Amino acid sequence: MPESLASPAAPAAAPSDPRVLIDELVEEFRSTAVARDQQGGTPKAERDRIRSAGLLTLMIPRQRGGQGASWVTAFDLSRRLARVDASLAHVYSYHNLGVVIPHLFGSEQQRVHFETATVREGWWWGNALNPLDRRAVLVADGSEFRLEGVKRFCSGSHDAEILPVGAVDPASGDLVVVVLPADREGIQLQHDWDAIGQRQTDSGSVRFEAVRVLREEVLGSRSAAPSPFRTFRACLTQLNLAHIFLGIAEGALEEARTVLLGQPDPGPGSPAASSRCGDPHVIQLFGELWLQLQAAIALVEQAALPLQQAWEKGPDITAEERGRCAVQIAAAKVTASRAGLAITSRLFELVGARGVSRSLGLDRHWRNLRTLSLHDPDTRKVEALGAWGLRRQLPAPDFYL
Amino acid sequence: MPESLASPAAPAAAPSDPRVLIDELVEEFRSTAVARDQQGGTPKAERDRIRSAGLLTLMIPRQRGGQGASWVTAFDLSRRLARVDASLAHVYSYHNLGVVIPHLFGSEQQRVHFETATVREGWWWGNALNPLDRRAVLVADGSEFRLEGVKRFCSGSHDAEILPVGAVDPASGDLVVVVLPADREGIQLQHDWDAIGQRQTDSGSVRFEAVRVLREEVLGSRSAAPSPFRTFRACLTQLNLAHIFLGIAEGALEEARTVLLGQPDPGPGSPAASSRCGDPHVIQLFGELWLQLQAAIALVEQAALPLQQAWEKGPDITAEERGRCAVQIAAAKVTASRAGLAITSRLFELVGARGVSRSLGLDRHWRNLRTLSLHDPDTRKVEALGAWGLRRQLPAPDFYL
Amino acid sequence: MPESLASPAAPAAAPSDPRVLIDELVEEFRSTAVARDQQGGTPKAERDRIRSAGLLTLMIPRQRGGQGASWVTAFDLSRRLARVDASLAHVYSYHNLGVVIPHLFGSEQQRVHFETATVREGWWWGNALNPLDRRAVLVADGSEFRLEGVKRFCSGSHDAEILPVGAVDPASGDLVVVVLPADREGIQLQHDWDAIGQRQTDSGSVRFEAVRVLREEVLGSRSAAPSPFRTFRACLTQLNLAHIFLGIAEGALEEARTVLLGQPDPGPGSPAASSRCGDPHVIQLFGELWLQLQAAIALVEQAALPLQQAWEKGPDITAEERGRCAVQIAAAKVTASRAGLAITSRLFELVGARGVSRSLGLDRHWRNLRTLSLHDPDTRKVEALGAWGLRRQLPAPDFYL
Amino acid sequence: MPESLASPAAPAAAPSDPRVLIDELVEEFRSTAVARDQQGGTPKAERDRIRSAGLLTLMIPRQRGGQGASWVTAFDLSRRLARVDASLAHVYSYHNLGVVIPHLFGSEQQRVHFETATVREGWWWGNALNPLDRRAVLVADGSEFRLEGVKRFCSGSHDAEILPVGAVDPASGDLVVVVLPADREGIQLQHDWDAIGQRQTDSGSVRFEAVRVLREEVLGSRSAAPSPFRTFRACLTQLNLAHIFLGIAEGALEEARTVLLGQPDPGPGSPAASSRCGDPHVIQLFGELWLQLQAAIALVEQAALPLQQAWEKGPDITAEERGRCAVQIAAAKVTASRAGLAITSRLFELVGARGVSRSLGLDRHWRNLRTLSLHDPDTRKVEALGAWGLRRQLPAPDFYL
Repeated sequence: MPESLASPAAPAAAPSDPRVLIDELVEEFRSTAVARDQQGGTPKAERDRIRSAGLLTLMIPRQRGGQGASWVTAFDLSRRLARVDASLAHVYSYHNLGVVIPHLFGSEQQRVHFETATVREGWWWGNALNPLDRRAVLVADGSEFRLEGVKRFCSGSHDAEILPVGAVDPASGDLVVVVLPADREGIQLQHDWDAIGQRQTDSGSVRFEAVRVLREEVLGSRSAAPSPFRTFRACLTQLNLAHIFLGIAEGALEEARTVLLGQPDPGPGSPAASSRCGDPHVIQLFGELWLQLQAAIALVEQAALPLQQAWEKGPDITAEERGRCAVQIAAAKVTASRAGLAITSRLFELVGARGVSRSLGLDRHWRNLRTLSLHDPDTRKVEALGAWGLRRQLPAPDFYL
Repeated sequence: MPESLASPAAPAAAPSDPRVLIDELVEEFRSTAVARDQQGGTPKAERDRIRSAGLLTLMIPRQRGGQGASWVTAFDLSRRLARVDASLAHVYSYHNLGVVIPHLFGSEQQRVHFETATVREGWWWGNALNPLDRRAVLVADGSEFRLEGVKRFCSGSHDAEILPVGAVDPASGDLVVVVLPADREGIQLQHDWDAIGQRQTDSGSVRFEAVRVLREEVLGSRSAAPSPFRTFRACLTQLNLAHIFLGIAEGALEEARTVLLGQPDPGPGSPAASSRCGDPHVIQLFGELWLQLQAAIALVEQAALPLQQAWEKGPDITAEERGRCAVQIAAAKVTASRAGLAITSRLFELVGARGVSRSLGLDRHWRNLRTLSLHDPDTRKVEALGAWGLRRQLPAPDFYL
Repeated sequence: MPESLASPAAPAAAPSDPRVLIDELVEEFRSTAVARDQQGGTPKAERDRIRSAGLLTLMIPRQRGGQGASWVTAFDLSRRLARVDASLAHVYSYHNLGVVIPHLFGSEQQRVHFETATVREGWWWGNALNPLDRRAVLVADGSEFRLEGVKRFCSGSHDAEILPVGAVDPASGDLVVVVLPADREGIQLQHDWDAIGQRQTDSGSVRFEAVRVLREEVLGSRSAAPSPFRTFRACLTQLNLAHIFLGIAEGALEEARTVLLGQPDPGPGSPAASSRCGDPHVIQLFGELWLQLQAAIALVEQAALPLQQAWEKGPDITAEERGRCAVQIAAAKVTASRAGLAITSRLFELVGARGVSRSLGLDRHWRNLRTLSLHDPDTRKVEALGAWGLRRQLPAPDFYL
Repeated sequence: MPESLASPAAPAAAPSDPRVLIDELVEEFRSTAVARDQQGGTPKAERDRIRSAGLLTLMIPRQRGGQGASWVTAFDLSRRLARVDASLAHVYSYHNLGVVIPHLFGSEQQRVHFETATVREGWWWGNALNPLDRRAVLVADGSEFRLEGVKRFCSGSHDAEILPVGAVDPASGDLVVVVLPADREGIQLQHDWDAIGQRQTDSGSVRFEAVRVLREEVLGSRSAAPSPFRTFRACLTQLNLAHIFLGIAEGALEEARTVLLGQPDPGPGSPAASSRCGDPHVIQLFGELWLQLQAAIALVEQAALPLQQAWEKGPDITAEERGRCAVQIAAAKVTASRAGLAITSRLFELVGARGVSRSLGLDRHWRNLRTLSLHDPDTRKVEALGAWGLRRQLPAPDFYL
């Protein structure tokens, strides 16, 4: 397990601590991670293990039967999962991000309703929000609505019970957030995700044909004159991604280390494992990569607490507070992305030629990170950091900043 | 086709020019390259097309019915193939490197014999030389020899007619080069190559059980007090690899460009292709990668002519001449390796999220280069360049320098 | 003033807070920093201002009349000074490092004596410890000793009242720490420091001719079977250097920003300041450099508290605790060094051609950091980080790790 | 002397070969280069040595008494001078660039006049062309003109006999090129150049007060509907700068090498020179820097011949030919700039702490390159390379592309 020098040793966690639970699951998932990456599709068994471990109520307030965890904890779980299985980190974390959608975009009543039902019914939240894809349209239909169209990049929607959808209101052009049962008639989950990485995220498209939408399932607009709090979802998703990037980087370096330290050399045709560990070039490169990782750890960990503090202010959060969170998160995410891409590609120089065997699956880390890091470009973030650093200009909130 | 600014426009080549032939094959192979990468195994049909195009006699002197091509041409073919299919570039180029083994390690008589037979029989040369794997042993057996043991990383040996083998002489410990028909009894090609890249190179292992070896099939020692010429094989293989790295980098950037310029956007959910081409961040990154590529092109192209000139001196080549070639080749190979790794990983930032679809196969370039670049480490080369730059110390010839 | 996003806003500090005092001095020193850099020599007036501000007792326990500050504070002062004047940061911080020498290497009695006298007499501690220079020899002379030889890189020794000296015991070969009044007969401070940076540090050599040394002025050995605590000086000096590097980087980027934002353009021959601030390339580069700075800030700040906690254990500190500090400090220092070198060199690309005027003195930051960063090489630290990351091997304590 | 592996050994040059002459001067100038850098001002004696060596007629056709050298040679001289003295490289090369100004912008008659007079009178051409500074105005005055205003960054104008000036025609707004004797009444050379680098280039400003300008001294417009040939001056100045950057990089690395290899260690306080040469970290870094230098050498050398070929076409050069030159030059210049900045900053890590002594003057290379590389930004060139690489779009000619 990667060990952060920076963090003081945590006290022994209780067995019900979600970090303990997730680490147990991580060890289970490890044995099949390479095979499941090759196979793609829905990690049904693993999702069910997360369900049965009681991890779906993590972000729901205690008063409604949830665990009332903080984002510090939630993102830590994303990171831990990502060390071994970035697909599961992705879909589980988007559940946690989904659960708070009514709080962000809906009324207090809607929040209570969905939180309560999530606990009671054991719902897993999927995701069809993709704000760049404006093809799903919410049409008024008597006293109700009808959803038509299609949405892509709907990670985690297979095997989810609930689907939050971003749909265009044709009258205003606004992007409206709608929450639907995934088995509502007319919702068709496509099996069209076949990517080089994040292969078990089901990030394909969803079609909507004359899908009935009740008035109480419409939360509110995501785009019209948003309050700082409503735009806070970008902070949540971005810092979650930063934690997944970091977990991938940690897991990749740790797997390389395991191969270097432990695996007996399969034959005399390559330098022995032991000799590679003593090779000055290998040690130097390990040091370089480890060093880059420390910077990522420091910036990612550092961003979590202020985000949680801002979150707790809820709708009272100011534009200034939200902007400072966004700046810090951008710095963390870019640093994690770069460290991760360096580590996941260069780890092969540590391990040597034996590392290319498909049975080790060492390349999945690069493929996963390469895929996920295209979610939104680092360059825009660096630009925003420049505007902040140079002119103290806070980033204009958008879906990624 | 990548266009080198540096190279003056070549005059129109004759239809029988091997570069024309190979470019035609490259266009054929392009349509199946992504599927064959996923599938792995032996590219039998494509190898047969190379055979039928008459490309197996490229490096054999005209006086013996070959084409008498230079290494400048041979490596150029490696580069052209690698733009689309680095596996075929690998196995075809190792054929060309194989054909000259009798010249490097054998007697004049052996050279004539094998060159003549290669033309007459249409042989494809495989490769079981791997000098680091010392498990294959050549035992004296009456007036003949017997080969026992195993050899790994034997790229291109499936579907080859001839197998050059590096075997240890147990008496002297020397590494002796032996050339055998691939169907000689006791030679067992394993199907144990399942790697993340270079998937159609059959770079698995070969077992030798009581394989009869005739006296005239033993060429000579590779390790005992080698002459500069005999160690020249390292220069050949290294500059060949540099050309393959370069071809991979060129092909990868060109494929990214094709996607950027040409492919209609699959939906409104992502920025349109046209807008990405006008995105300043995309243009800037393209410029960065293109610039790195130019440095690699310049250094790789620049190393080929001096190598050919040294090659033509044959056994008369001096240690100084050989050493200067090695230095220049090392600089070229490291530069190509770095440019290629940057390009094959960062091209996804050019193309954006759509680039991760497995149907495009854009990740195969990184997987291929990542695999092939582990052949031998760049760090040792930089060390050798430092010793040369600082103290004018020529690299001690070894299998990789 | 650079603003750390990461650190929560500090509560308003009391006027006697040493950070307030030092920031006032920094503003004073700013007006002459460029001229003094060109002129070199001893910053006598500025040293006297530090004296009169009462900052020489910072690290002395309250019970002996000092301020009992922590290293967190002391290093923060180094960083603040270095933003404007890295020479003063150097010599003042080596005073603070000097004050604790009796605690590290001497008896409790010696500690009390020197701490008490420092408060009473207002001593400034110089530095002639340089452990690599073994030319100063401590010869037994009756019941006393005699110091002979020479020592180089004795930063801050001009205008110091007290000189700690590292001298070789010719019998054992050990490096012994001696503390002498700077005006002791036979001590000759040379004026031989004329370097490209850190020009007001007086880092020249000191000659010792038949210098009388009393028994109580000999603290103890630095090299013989050192305890973890005794080797802790390396942790202190290294983290102090990391803070100076960081301060240089912060000050350099801030000065570049000031020029960019504020200075009216001297003529129409160059792009106006205002237009440069809106230039996307300038913003992007500012973002890059600002981002690198954040990683350095995070790692440097993060290392200070554990170091202070270890320090407070005194001689009870274990090798494990000391080693973990050293690893964390090494990561911080290399990161700060790299960020600083990038910032101090590339800031000119932000500011443009006008930035090269000597009157701005923008190059002093690069010259200062370039000089100071040669104190000990980053590469050895990366090696140590690799050994830790790969094998959990703690660095063997030496003068720099 | 840096030795290019890539270039075949040149045959022994004749004593009158300008490369031989310049190398002799370079050795002369070396002994005073460090002192002159510190002192600044006009390198009068060295300019006179260049005069007496007959190097001012280099670029004038043989038929008019000149040497008819190619730009390949002229730029090679810039590079050789820059290895030791980048200020002289700058001012001498701008003389060569000045001599062809009548050919670029004037009539055939003006060309003949100025070329003939330059040979006859031994003129040194200065430079007051700076196209970004539009404060110098050319006012019609009867049948003649009057020049008024000021011009900055007029490198090499002190001690020049001829001053080409870029002046605004207030009627059209065009930038008109005028050539004047430097001692014409009303021309006032300012002594206002005091920069961190390129300290002996006199790159200050020139004032014009009611300066009489004859009709035949007005060459033509630089900005109005320029032909490809007329915009070719940007290609010339840019590739000249690339050669100076390269020379600085070569000279810097070579001086570091000389210190490493040759200088006896000044004392036991630092690792001996010999031991540093054997230090693996030093060798590795030397290899890295040497490798970067090779890429710069290859791209810079490669750009010179096509430029010369284009130049020889004169006004017949097409926009396409000019554009391809510009792309290749941009790639060369950015590569040389980056390699040079890395080398001139990191060479100190090779040499160690002793390298900071002002007497060695090792920092002048970074200061010179840092100053000169701000002439125009690399980022715009990378952008142009991206537009070319991605869309085959030739750069729109401007003063720097």
